[in-house]
Amino acid sequence: MADRTNHDAAATVTAQLAALTQRVRALEDVEAVREVVTAYGPAVDAGDAEAVGRLWTDDAVYDLDLKVFTGREEIVEMVRTAPHQDYLAEGCGHLLDPVHVRVDGDEAVATCHSMLLRRSSDEDSFWVWRVSANRFELVRSEGGWLIRRRTARVLDGRASARELLGRVRS
Amino acid sequence: MADRTNHDAAATVTAQLAALTQRVRALEDVEAVREVVTAYGPAVDAGDAEAVGRLWTDDAVYDLDLKVFTGREEIVEMVRTAPHQDYLAEGCGHLLDPVHVRVDGDEAVATCHSMLLRRSSDEDSFWVWRVSANRFELVRSEGGWLIRRRTARVLDGRASARELLGRVRS
Amino acid sequence: MADRTNHDAAATVTAQLAALTQRVRALEDVEAVREVVTAYGPAVDAGDAEAVGRLWTDDAVYDLDLKVFTGREEIVEMVRTAPHQDYLAEGCGHLLDPVHVRVDGDEAVATCHSMLLRRSSDEDSFWVWRVSANRFELVRSEGGWLIRRRTARVLDGRASARELLGRVRS
Repeated sequence: MADRTNHDAAATVTAQLAALTQRVRALEDVEAVREVVTAYGPAVDAGDAEAVGRLWTDDAVYDLDLKVFTGREEIVEMVRTAPHQDYLAEGCGHLLDPVHVRVDGDEAVATCHSMLLRRSSDEDSFWVWRVSANRFELVRSEGGWLIRRRTARVLDGRASARELLGRVRS
Repeated sequence: MADRTNHDAAATVTAQLAALTQRVRALEDVEAVREVVTAYGPAVDAGDAEAVGRLWTDDAVYDLDLKVFTGREEIVEMVRTAPHQDYLAEGCGHLLDPVHVRVDGDEAVATCHSMLLRRSSDEDSFWVWRVSANRFELVRSEGGWLIRRRTARVLDGRASARELLGRVRS
Repeated sequence: MADRTNHDAAATVTAQLAALTQRVRALEDVEAVREVVTAYGPAVDAGDAEAVGRLWTDDAVYDLDLKVFTGREEIVEMVRTAPHQDYLAEGCGHLLDPVHVRVDGDEAVATCHSMLLRRSSDEDSFWVWRVSANRFELVRSEGGWLIRRRTARVLDGRASARELLGRVRS
């Protein structure tokens, strides 16, 4: 009788532990996705091309309305060359606003705004060049979460920027 | 004797599981509040009035210094009409800075700044119309956390904006 | 035999609980660090010098490129006096972008951008005075996490700002 009770109690504890472990893993995934996405701005404003590259999958696509970068190597090269290096030299900040994260198994979506601020040449201030809608699509890999695709569209009234933001919770 | 030891050990495990479950729930609540608050900007810049509406309780109040919207329907209507639709058409971004979250049982407070950036008509840039102090008050409902009240005050030196931010950790 | 099985099962459960508790504590630490860092902007724009002071250790250093404040008292005094009080009176916002958090035992690093926006005197808008690279170094204390050092460097192309951001994930 005691054995049977112990056995049932043990099964309950095992099930509760498994359920709680799943919930903790879900929280860890959100934090891990946030960690990757929030590392982009500092790395790109540091001009650290290798660090930027480590955030993406090999075959990642960075689809900016101005240009599409295909594969990690093109993204790394973007950081190393003009015009990005010119922006860094004159002074700039690539900022995000708080990242909305949605994880589904081994995939995740992070939605937010981005701002590119540039230093004014003639005075002690910055001006806002671009404010964009952003959707990061990430995948879980052996080494952690990586960005597989980032789509950014400037918020100038165009439908594509609004559609991208409209997918935030879906 | 073994039974009694098993019983004590089981009671300890049950208590530890319950305590840990409470801590996980507290973390989940913070994430859930953050999820709702960070969904607002994308939804409103998408012009998705229904998605904006789903973030609020039926009787929610959005108390902006310019105007007070009472009830979800007035908030939804705000998104659907001028001047909001004009801002979207010319290009705009409703951004937050990182949200400070405080949960107390079935209620929560989220404090942050907001910015409303608008596209310049004559050049390739944006200008900052408003920078405001924000306090979101949320409640846990059957379907998850919802905004019951948002108070926003432009940071133009007025005492009400400063008082609102001064309540951040209280 | 049943006792031995029970004993093994109990040991497994205890080990799993301990491991899960560690993971929960790691998540709590990230949230706690974020809570402290995101409380700074609201407190400083509220002009609440005591609340600002409570975020730092006694011997904290706030190393801004314009000036270095040494010890909590100097930081509190900065909030109470000019020019900070002048910025508040004319209207300003001290904003961050999403905080990248790294915890290592009883120490933590938070990296992000900051913006100081000020209200224009002649029109209904704000201008961006400074966009800076930020590194917050925090320590776990009896009363929770506190800022021990904040280093900020304006992003005007200087190497020190870029180097600071380059340490984001290291």
